[in-house]
Amino acid sequence: MKLATLRNAEGTTEAVRVDGTTATRLGTTDVGSLLAQPSWRERAEAAAGPTVDLGGAAYAPVVTRPGKVVCVGLNYRTHILEMGRDLPQFPTLFSKYAETLIGANDDIRRPVETDALDWECELAVVIGAPVRRATTAEAEAAIAGFATLNDITARDWQFRTKEWLQGKNWEATTPVGPWLVTPDELPGGVRPTLAIRTEVDGEVVQDDTTGDLLFDPVALVEYISTMITLQPGDLIASGTPGGVGHARKPARYLTAGQKVVTEVEGLGRCENVVVDDGRD
Amino acid sequence: MKLATLRNAEGTTEAVRVDGTTATRLGTTDVGSLLAQPSWRERAEAAAGPTVDLGGAAYAPVVTRPGKVVCVGLNYRTHILEMGRDLPQFPTLFSKYAETLIGANDDIRRPVETDALDWECELAVVIGAPVRRATTAEAEAAIAGFATLNDITARDWQFRTKEWLQGKNWEATTPVGPWLVTPDELPGGVRPTLAIRTEVDGEVVQDDTTGDLLFDPVALVEYISTMITLQPGDLIASGTPGGVGHARKPARYLTAGQKVVTEVEGLGRCENVVVDDGRD
Repeated sequence: MKLATLRNAEGTTEAVRVDGTTATRLGTTDVGSLLAQPSWRERAEAAAGPTVDLGGAAYAPVVTRPGKVVCVGLNYRTHILEMGRDLPQFPTLFSKYAETLIGANDDIRRPVETDALDWECELAVVIGAPVRRATTAEAEAAIAGFATLNDITARDWQFRTKEWLQGKNWEATTPVGPWLVTPDELPGGVRPTLAIRTEVDGEVVQDDTTGDLLFDPVALVEYISTMITLQPGDLIASGTPGGVGHARKPARYLTAGQKVVTEVEGLGRCENVVVDDGRD
Repeated sequence: MKLATLRNAEGTTEAVRVDGTTATRLGTTDVGSLLAQPSWRERAEAAAGPTVDLGGAAYAPVVTRPGKVVCVGLNYRTHILEMGRDLPQFPTLFSKYAETLIGANDDIRRPVETDALDWECELAVVIGAPVRRATTAEAEAAIAGFATLNDITARDWQFRTKEWLQGKNWEATTPVGPWLVTPDELPGGVRPTLAIRTEVDGEVVQDDTTGDLLFDPVALVEYISTMITLQPGDLIASGTPGGVGHARKPARYLTAGQKVVTEVEGLGRCENVVVDDGRD
């Protein structure tokens, strides 16, 4: 099953089940509010209400206002080893605020305050049930599905201090979507093995597989829920493989007018144009 | 003016204006939802509805579910210099999730997964208006008031990786309250100069003044809002002075049964007992 949040003509949003080229309306404002209902899966599967044509659909972030966006650094095994580092014992975690999120086809707003805006294609885990100190089985059951996320980063601000937050939290920079895809549709299920890639103006710059994740989605849910309750609609951005612009020689960063395509196999593509953004 | 969020007998919360030993009900569920109304100040000042006795009041977190809790590290000048470090050019920022927050007299839940739980008394800034890329005047006007916050930290988890998030985000650990106090009641207004102190079982362990802040509340609102819109009810925890348990020789950490009192002059005290917390 594929679920999405669409913007409608009234300026609000609504959750839909994606059925090929049409979608069935689910009667809630977004996928997050759908997931907050314990019977979300049955309700979404059974929905037979009015449909909308997906041609020209305007995708909002899959979850419009997640309570938490937990991000993971240094999580692709091959990339860590090629950088000459040891494999870490624990995941490195940081956070994005909800205001960073945009839809799958929205413009990425490049702040005029940075000249080092970079891409990071990631497999995003979407939580479907409250879970704290999860066992492996509980963590598996708490995963509603997956989406594509581009963890856009201002590298100059990221490295102003030792904490990465300020490189990661620029308003309206971070596409997530177009859909949530449930694990039953994916090879590997809740530990999916999917191609993950980024193109900038048609050139492939990241190309790897989520099978290379050091801490897989289930392990991440277990680890994070040790600390805090993961809630329905929360997102975990599971880290990016090699190929980011900052690590290239010379380094490459995004500029206005460029088109960035991030795609995780089976989860759909985010296609976003970069535009400059400053104080009006 | 002092504003608080109280728990009531029905198991919900409500915002009140504190008037000495009584409080006036404001008809909204918490201070966060009050601040979301552009006329919150006039409305709270004018309220003349039913009152409640504050004797035995149960304080919830001043803002029960802030969209953002932005935290600042390394922000007390004297403490930075005594540690032999240079004064930083930029504030170090990290984040807490809303589930970490507790009321001013709630138990601090010490996770069984850590043996290094530490105190950090902080001046918390509460945002009262949406603001992005704020000028100094806009930042001053966007500060609704201040509260006391204890940024409880699991030091072992904080230093598992370079990012501090996992030391800072344990459920039900972080008191904030008892009140929001508006700047007009404080010496220094939106840049208040207030004594800040922590006691553990009656022993003073932190004792400093918010006048020593390197990045003051207005500067923090300007800096953070460069990146992202600060929204009504958002909190900024502005950092802690010297005297934390981790820096003592030998190091000292919190154990079950201890009472921690954090107080910023004029903003009231958080008095919290430490209790052990593990999987049921």
